[in-house]
Amino acid sequence: MKTLIVYAHPEPESLNGSLKDLAVSTLRGAGHEVRVSDLYAMDWKAAVDAADFGPAASGRLKVARDSGRAFETGSLTPDVVAEQEKLLWADTVVFQFPLWWYSMPAILKGWVERVFSYRFAYGVGEHDGTRYGERFGEGTLAGRRALLSVTVGGPESHYAARGINGPIDDLLFPIQHGILFYPGLEVLPPFVLYGTDRLTDEEYPDIAKAWRQRLLTLESTEPIAFRRQNFGDYEIPSLALKEGLEPAGRTGFGLHVRG
Amino acid sequence: MKTLIVYAHPEPESLNGSLKDLAVSTLRGAGHEVRVSDLYAMDWKAAVDAADFGPAASGRLKVARDSGRAFETGSLTPDVVAEQEKLLWADTVVFQFPLWWYSMPAILKGWVERVFSYRFAYGVGEHDGTRYGERFGEGTLAGRRALLSVTVGGPESHYAARGINGPIDDLLFPIQHGILFYPGLEVLPPFVLYGTDRLTDEEYPDIAKAWRQRLLTLESTEPIAFRRQNFGDYEIPSLALKEGLEPAGRTGFGLHVRG
Repeated sequence: MKTLIVYAHPEPESLNGSLKDLAVSTLRGAGHEVRVSDLYAMDWKAAVDAADFGPAASGRLKVARDSGRAFETGSLTPDVVAEQEKLLWADTVVFQFPLWWYSMPAILKGWVERVFSYRFAYGVGEHDGTRYGERFGEGTLAGRRALLSVTVGGPESHYAARGINGPIDDLLFPIQHGILFYPGLEVLPPFVLYGTDRLTDEEYPDIAKAWRQRLLTLESTEPIAFRRQNFGDYEIPSLALKEGLEPAGRTGFGLHVRG
Repeated sequence: MKTLIVYAHPEPESLNGSLKDLAVSTLRGAGHEVRVSDLYAMDWKAAVDAADFGPAASGRLKVARDSGRAFETGSLTPDVVAEQEKLLWADTVVFQFPLWWYSMPAILKGWVERVFSYRFAYGVGEHDGTRYGERFGEGTLAGRRALLSVTVGGPESHYAARGINGPIDDLLFPIQHGILFYPGLEVLPPFVLYGTDRLTDEEYPDIAKAWRQRLLTLESTEPIAFRRQNFGDYEIPSLALKEGLEPAGRTGFGLHVRG
């Protein structure tokens, strides 16, 4: 297994830092290859702008078009090219981050915006009567797997079905489905730790054990059963889920998970 | 009316730039005061780190605790203090941004992470048997209103109830409820433009008309009826919505909207 760990936390001695270190040692100890993108240590540039596209940047910048042109002409910046190469090298991508304001840290969102360029992660494949590009189950990163490892400050009940923050699966849907499944990654059920604001050192061994267990079973874990776009479940080009495919009462994001 | 516009797009001549300019001229033309935070023009620092907290940063950084200590001791950086002052000055906050990868641009997420410090936007108020801090309808920004103005590249059907991307209201919930309603802002229904990847110049006048109409009715528009946390709808401290409050069949994020 070749695993890329994309890690976003400013403090090496944080829980996130420990989980990242544990992932590296656990996977290497099991004979796997591991590379790490430590976004804070790399001083990762978070804001996409004209400087990312070199000579492919238009006078009047168009982010999607210009990023695609830069991708195709080899004028993306070296930091972005290096991350795209790591993604193509990997068969598994682990994202380690704290849930900040109900989403990923800005520095990681900026990694997505810059690395997931047009023609690499979106704007891939043809459109016709039966296909709407290669995405949501197909695309550049098809055949690879992704896993979110997320620390959450608040208690689990706040993220349960009736919890005030909304269900964790729905909060993570725009990431798991919209960012990861979109360019073809299969997404494993997330590893979520709750109540990390009040975690004590005594609780860490159990957490480490659970995390190691997930890491050592990455290859045998069933991905989330997101529906693929171009295989009959959706009307083309409206991309509305066809009537009657979902279990009774299922609505919202949950429509896009089979069974 | 005193409106702060927080604007996130790298190209001044983009649709987002035009909508921001139109908001400024429309509101000023109607006699209102307007201030703009143009995050790209300000070269806004997106990644929260120890440098944000001055002497309040611990040797082993704890983002929440240290940001609160920096807030209370006046050692937050001047760029962050200026944004907090603008928020306190404003009675209305408009966010103008493109939906990138199903969420706000990284530079804007970084504005939230740095400006919404502990003790300012969260970690406010007491916890007891009937209150779980001042949040979700109470807090530092209570009495103010917020509005998202969002451009979306894809067609509206992809963001409809059965659309593959998920319903737009659900995609925006972590922002509207989790980021804006959390510190007390009342959130107006969003102004969303779809299909902006393929927009022609001929369509702009109708868009401008619709946007002006929304801007000129900000004061009379009913906010989204998010449920307030501490007023009887939720169990304390689990923050589970009490049984039977929701309309039949309502689940997920929609539970947290009344009626």
